[in-house]
Amino acid sequence: MKNSLGAKTIVPTTPVWVVGTYDPEGKPNVMTVAWGGICCSQPPCLYVSLRKATQTYGNIMKRKCFTVSIPSETYAKETDYFGIASGKTEDKFSTTELTPVKSDLVDAPYVEEFPLIIECKVIKVVKIGLHTEFIGEIVDVKADSLVLNEKNLPDIEKMKPLIWNIAGRTYHKVGKRMGKAFSIGKKIQNRSIRTH
Amino acid sequence: MKNSLGAKTIVPTTPVWVVGTYDPEGKPNVMTVAWGGICCSQPPCLYVSLRKATQTYGNIMKRKCFTVSIPSETYAKETDYFGIASGKTEDKFSTTELTPVKSDLVDAPYVEEFPLIIECKVIKVVKIGLHTEFIGEIVDVKADSLVLNEKNLPDIEKMKPLIWNIAGRTYHKVGKRMGKAFSIGKKIQNRSIRTH
Repeated sequence: MKNSLGAKTIVPTTPVWVVGTYDPEGKPNVMTVAWGGICCSQPPCLYVSLRKATQTYGNIMKRKCFTVSIPSETYAKETDYFGIASGKTEDKFSTTELTPVKSDLVDAPYVEEFPLIIECKVIKVVKIGLHTEFIGEIVDVKADSLVLNEKNLPDIEKMKPLIWNIAGRTYHKVGKRMGKAFSIGKKIQNRSIRTH
Repeated sequence: MKNSLGAKTIVPTTPVWVVGTYDPEGKPNVMTVAWGGICCSQPPCLYVSLRKATQTYGNIMKRKCFTVSIPSETYAKETDYFGIASGKTEDKFSTTELTPVKSDLVDAPYVEEFPLIIECKVIKVVKIGLHTEFIGEIVDVKADSLVLNEKNLPDIEKMKPLIWNIAGRTYHKVGKRMGKAFSIGKKIQNRSIRTH
């Protein structure tokens, strides 16, 4: 028997992503979001959902592109600040002394100090309600050498991304490995094949 | 200087969600997805992205609703199996001996043993490419008493959800708390207000 908690967005886990855009004057801006995720494998796409009231919403509407910079846990404070302050009144790069780098593929900046960044071109805008989804085709992923493994892929234990716990309003680390996907469930599948 | 890794969906973090639906004969089915997230606060909405080839895609197209059951780490193996096997050829509930419960709000089943479940009515279907997004309005969230805190909200440390690490193809636990959101960044904001 489960307890009804009502129609709420208290659903784990959600990511902690920093969306980079240029404002109409070409000033770089960043905003932290948790309403984001991968939404297609081919073409590779991710989305971020934004309120119309944000600076980032207007910036993306105008330039049709954005970046996502994934902070490591070292930058939890700066990332939280990026979600509190508005680019309409504060220069978030200057305040944090972090470095905006112009993407060579899309007309948007990313955060140099963050270990992984994704460059996106908007291919769909989906109005839902308070939030609008911007679906961006991933044109490139770039990473610091320090977080790559021997296969030249980003290693989550080296990257140390954050997780957003909406119900408790806290950030969390990524914890221990729990097993290999498409593998630990195979014993159960074999059981099924034997008995059917 | 960052290394280009190409246009790939290797972006942390993504969730581990189990989508529940009924097939045309009313048989309950479940499928594990990582392409999912919250996409609107008002109305509260989440999405899951699915390939047309899956049983779940057809089931949602027909009944226009689904549930999301969030597994705790205890059920990592069953969850992995739900992502390996197809409901077209295997009865995933019967194989795992987990219990399908019919939602009283939407025409879809959820997994009784998982600590948090979300009931959704589809309000938009967004075709992207290989994947199609099903945007569902959250009509209720239900949780086991054991995972609720004193505010009657789900406690992520009690729920123990999984995280999907796509680049390494591993599941991970949620790790330690890194600080309070809308709070740890305030010192930086105050610095900005003082100096501008």
